[in-house]
Amino acid sequence: MTKSSTAAKPRQRAAGAPTGREIKPGVVAFKRARILEEAAALFFEKGYEAATLEMLADRLSATKPFLYTYFRGKAAILCAICELGVTESLAALDRIAETERTSIDLLKASLREVAEIIIARNEYLVVYQREMMNLDRGDAQRILRLRHEFDLRIGKMIEDCVRDGYITVPDAPAMSIWIGGLLSWITYCYRPGSSRSGEAVADQAMKACLRLIGLD
Amino acid sequence: MTKSSTAAKPRQRAAGAPTGREIKPGVVAFKRARILEEAAALFFEKGYEAATLEMLADRLSATKPFLYTYFRGKAAILCAICELGVTESLAALDRIAETERTSIDLLKASLREVAEIIIARNEYLVVYQREMMNLDRGDAQRILRLRHEFDLRIGKMIEDCVRDGYITVPDAPAMSIWIGGLLSWITYCYRPGSSRSGEAVADQAMKACLRLIGLD
Repeated sequence: MTKSSTAAKPRQRAAGAPTGREIKPGVVAFKRARILEEAAALFFEKGYEAATLEMLADRLSATKPFLYTYFRGKAAILCAICELGVTESLAALDRIAETERTSIDLLKASLREVAEIIIARNEYLVVYQREMMNLDRGDAQRILRLRHEFDLRIGKMIEDCVRDGYITVPDAPAMSIWIGGLLSWITYCYRPGSSRSGEAVADQAMKACLRLIGLD
Repeated sequence: MTKSSTAAKPRQRAAGAPTGREIKPGVVAFKRARILEEAAALFFEKGYEAATLEMLADRLSATKPFLYTYFRGKAAILCAICELGVTESLAALDRIAETERTSIDLLKASLREVAEIIIARNEYLVVYQREMMNLDRGDAQRILRLRHEFDLRIGKMIEDCVRDGYITVPDAPAMSIWIGGLLSWITYCYRPGSSRSGEAVADQAMKACLRLIGLD
């Protein structure tokens, strides 16, 4: 892994952007990410059903055919918005697993990073929570499986911390689900522009997570 | 308070049903509650925007004018569905405050009761979480104020437990918000007919809440 790819956090560049030298894949990834960003804001404001691809194209000063170059349609855009939070969170777990040393540092850094993703992707996650019934059944189930994988990996990290004697938790798999609940609750506690900063809400969420596993 | 009114739990009779001798207020309350029950199931299945008052009348083998006798329209029905969970929870806190003795028993019994309300009202709460953007602005704000009142009252109960030496919690008001998050997460963990029973999910949620305040 090169130094630059270790330092870059995926959510700060276009989601899924490749790191090679060719410009085209990066441009494609950038355009997809910009479409999703505006679509998440549009669905957040108007609701999925009321929003149209014309409105989305207008916000981007682009055309509907431009959108169709990157997504099959409105349903595919919704799906990409809904899965972004969990795929970025899983990628964060992978990335942190390569850097942190002790099991407890790994768990703490992972929770912190996911809390920050939830704050950065607030609109995406609110759209997911509201509009999941508008997803195709197959997409909805695939995203649920990713969320389940996330819970399992957090549960595994908690078990590692128990094994290493850092914490005592009677039922790690169950507790990981409630940690998921605390992290998701960030979208209720935080709104961009509200009096509480994202940083402060992430701190509170972290403290709550640590209390749940018997730390702090 | 008579013996019978102490024994009856409000959510097991029609919501808001009076306890006097006249039959009419009870019938009105029963009809309103039945309309809300079917409407919550309909909105849960179809989504608020796709659902119509004709569909709702059909489910009740009734007519649209019958519905208009009890509610001003679809928006008023949505509002009543969305506020039911929090008003029943606040009523539960009132009721338990009259029966429990120590501050810690009061807190435990309150959390347990609210967990059971969330399980019993699963569809109402999912509809609220999904459809809150379809509420009139004034209704949405009023329901948020009720939720805030709930958080404050749980925060006050936690402070009482700290004062009485049962627990040590650094920031009771903040912690009450995260307890609200754990309780709300029940709607993600529990689906009627799923492998985990409502009882089991309520038990897990309770354990997580108690860990959050440093008990268990």
